[in-house]
Amino acid sequence: MERIKRNERLSAMLRILSGTPNRIHTLGEFCDLFGAAKSTISEDIEILSDTVVRFELGEIATVAGAAGGVRYRATVARGTAHRELSAIAEKLCTPSRLLPGGFLYTSDVTADPSSAELLGRLLAQRYYHKQPQMVLTMETKGIPIALMTARMLGVPLVIARRDTRAYEGPAVKINYIAGSDRSIETMALSRRSVTAGQKVLIIDDFMKGGGTLQGMVEMMREFQAEVVGVGVMITTAEPQHKRVRGAKSLLILKHVDMDTGKIEIVPAPEYAEKGPDSTPKKAL
Amino acid sequence: MERIKRNERLSAMLRILSGTPNRIHTLGEFCDLFGAAKSTISEDIEILSDTVVRFELGEIATVAGAAGGVRYRATVARGTAHRELSAIAEKLCTPSRLLPGGFLYTSDVTADPSSAELLGRLLAQRYYHKQPQMVLTMETKGIPIALMTARMLGVPLVIARRDTRAYEGPAVKINYIAGSDRSIETMALSRRSVTAGQKVLIIDDFMKGGGTLQGMVEMMREFQAEVVGVGVMITTAEPQHKRVRGAKSLLILKHVDMDTGKIEIVPAPEYAEKGPDSTPKKAL
Repeated sequence: MERIKRNERLSAMLRILSGTPNRIHTLGEFCDLFGAAKSTISEDIEILSDTVVRFELGEIATVAGAAGGVRYRATVARGTAHRELSAIAEKLCTPSRLLPGGFLYTSDVTADPSSAELLGRLLAQRYYHKQPQMVLTMETKGIPIALMTARMLGVPLVIARRDTRAYEGPAVKINYIAGSDRSIETMALSRRSVTAGQKVLIIDDFMKGGGTLQGMVEMMREFQAEVVGVGVMITTAEPQHKRVRGAKSLLILKHVDMDTGKIEIVPAPEYAEKGPDSTPKKAL
Repeated sequence: MERIKRNERLSAMLRILSGTPNRIHTLGEFCDLFGAAKSTISEDIEILSDTVVRFELGEIATVAGAAGGVRYRATVARGTAHRELSAIAEKLCTPSRLLPGGFLYTSDVTADPSSAELLGRLLAQRYYHKQPQMVLTMETKGIPIALMTARMLGVPLVIARRDTRAYEGPAVKINYIAGSDRSIETMALSRRSVTAGQKVLIIDDFMKGGGTLQGMVEMMREFQAEVVGVGVMITTAEPQHKRVRGAKSLLILKHVDMDTGKIEIVPAPEYAEKGPDSTPKKAL
């Protein structure tokens, strides 16, 4: 076999690491793949760590200990997060998106692979420290964003359904209060999809009253799983009181004017642009 | 700014290309990013093309013409496809997955980000030459695989619903014949999600009679869109006659024995292992 150059090792290694976000690869794995010494691979990792920071392509970290190795996370720099969220917000503010009843058409954005990926990266970034072991969402619109969040966290996705399905096997079914009309809805989740004690991150695309999200929290209680966070793409500013507590949102829907068709969506305060006279903010 | 080394350029470039599969980047974009001459970037691309082939990490190609540039595709080598599909098939053949009515529990596999990604890579690979402009699926279980297929093709995903939703706006609703009991189901799709003349790839996780897939084909007829392919994760061997024509599947469900709990799923013939005495097969 022809000798493998550092050039090749570095690009291949970053491709492999970034293709499996938040998964730990042992140094031995790369030693075998490239026929290189551990010291060489360690040097490679140092170079790669600097490169991804320099070009804002995420983060590479070495993890010590018996289960240690090297890990890539697709983190987004604050400036980029602000810029990308502002672009999505602007796109969502097109008056033609306004539908009867004050609903907003967002399906083209939520199901677009690149925006779903960006939103998933940002949501995962908020919860790395909580070390979720799975992501839960409720069908249908939040699935692409939840899948991308799960991908970035390196954990499985579990999808709650509106009703039981024969191909999901025995299921837990609960009722919850949804929407501003306080209607009672049902939610079903396959018995075998969650195990007691698992750390769960709940993800959805939209929160108004927070009823569906609270339903998912209650569903996790039935499974004796631990909810470590609730992440949302868009939250409405009104009503201020949400049925679910502590949810974190990427975008805020501040106002919809049905008469003029004016929609106001902005990045959440955590992603606000640092003004020249603003007080220093904590890094994400 | 410190001079950017080839090492750094190559890894950053592959990260950017592989993060946006099937999207064409101009050479000028990389010249600007790295402050390098076009000839240097061209050399970089040649090195990267060799590297991804050598380590089976996909394909990099330069595209000529006015809209030309460089493009990454996450293609999977035949041997890897066989190995990975066999692993998924084996996982799905666990007797505990068998449910009353002969249904098979597959949700943990279809919603797992890494298997969804692999399946999406393989499905995209079958249809690059058809240049689909969007991917269509029907809620719910196929969404993760369809999203990953769309991501690999660099096109949007559109999700058909079981019923109209206020937040999807005006919709087209059709009836179709589903399941072996020939029951009549409805399918709804937002009016604004597809435009006439678009090339559509239909993706789903499971095909038995093919009714739901045929429903999606009929839905696309209503939109005057052109169906360029139908891709499925698992197809049952029986019934042989499917309502939809020309579907391509990754896995074949050959047999389910309710009495013994024996399930037989194998990779589709296109992904069969090349035996030592087999006749040469066409490359994928």
